[in-house]
Amino acid sequence: MLSRGFKQGRCILARLDHGADIVKQISDLLDKEKIEAAAFYAIGALAEAEIAYYDQVSHEYRKISINEPVELVSCTGNVSLRDGQPFLHAHATLAFSDGKAIGGHLTSGRVFAVEAFVQELLGEPLVREHDSTTSLYLWGQ
Amino acid sequence: MLSRGFKQGRCILARLDHGADIVKQISDLLDKEKIEAAAFYAIGALAEAEIAYYDQVSHEYRKISINEPVELVSCTGNVSLRDGQPFLHAHATLAFSDGKAIGGHLTSGRVFAVEAFVQELLGEPLVREHDSTTSLYLWGQ
Amino acid sequence: MLSRGFKQGRCILARLDHGADIVKQISDLLDKEKIEAAAFYAIGALAEAEIAYYDQVSHEYRKISINEPVELVSCTGNVSLRDGQPFLHAHATLAFSDGKAIGGHLTSGRVFAVEAFVQELLGEPLVREHDSTTSLYLWGQ
Repeated sequence: MLSRGFKQGRCILARLDHGADIVKQISDLLDKEKIEAAAFYAIGALAEAEIAYYDQVSHEYRKISINEPVELVSCTGNVSLRDGQPFLHAHATLAFSDGKAIGGHLTSGRVFAVEAFVQELLGEPLVREHDSTTSLYLWGQ
Repeated sequence: MLSRGFKQGRCILARLDHGADIVKQISDLLDKEKIEAAAFYAIGALAEAEIAYYDQVSHEYRKISINEPVELVSCTGNVSLRDGQPFLHAHATLAFSDGKAIGGHLTSGRVFAVEAFVQELLGEPLVREHDSTTSLYLWGQ
Repeated sequence: MLSRGFKQGRCILARLDHGADIVKQISDLLDKEKIEAAAFYAIGALAEAEIAYYDQVSHEYRKISINEPVELVSCTGNVSLRDGQPFLHAHATLAFSDGKAIGGHLTSGRVFAVEAFVQELLGEPLVREHDSTTSLYLWGQ
């Protein structure tokens, strides 16, 4: 197991812009605040979204498009460096009008209303590298 | 995007009272500890619950009543001020006996057993105001 | 309600080992780092998993075996002492290839790729004791 300790940095609460993309907005926040390591959480509602399931055999993401308004029941993620830039990796649980929940890797989502919490972590940021076992970009040494 | 930085305050773990309402219990804790800004998480089980889906067209909450025992798979939220009082905004993922998950805005839930974590945030609390675009009470400037 | 305040300790990001058990890996991390109180979060993917639903009438866990690869949409938990040892209590939301989500108490899961975040809490750790009302091991005074 690879593990690394950090100290707490800033705690940031943010209201994302209506109509913007959730992933882009958080990426912009990270760039603006120069945050390279963080834990991330959000709740709210999305007008539409795209999540993905990673096929552990074919090593490909299967996209799942959500073309209707959904609750963003939870969004959990982390920030590290990929290709030298702050990179948000986030998963989301979404719910339809009858409450039924779906979830997966969050690739995009149009904000209806989203409230995010970023816990900045101070220390040497983790760096994503290609992992040959999973074909994912995981934290390297 | 509206964002505000905070410093960490206290971290509080709490075991909620069996039979009490989860939202009321957390609100009481916030009042008692004078917490006006926080991130919030909980897991456990509820004897019954009510969640809601926000209709993004009609701008009305549609209530979904859960009249059976469910796992509280996750509960994620935040605390800010509304009408001058600490206000918990929380979403929950619940699961039935077969594991199927539903989720949404958490309006109430009768505690079977709930373990909560409150991360107090120190600084000027965010204030909820009516937002004409969504008809929700969102963080204002 | 029982509540206890803590100060923040270390923040640890960890990449779990491919093929290992998620609960065992986190338990090993807690032992190695001597962490007795914490909040815990994770996202990733599991090759297989077992979750459980607690029957609030019979007071027994009903196991739900997931014998296929799933996204670990979210995992939320806490750490306290049980029988004198650090004990992780975690719930998980999992998603199948079509995105459908299930969730419950996480008992085991074989790691495909998992990224965890441990927020250590400094202070007197909470201690789990048998609770006669629920037959669960909950935090005692």
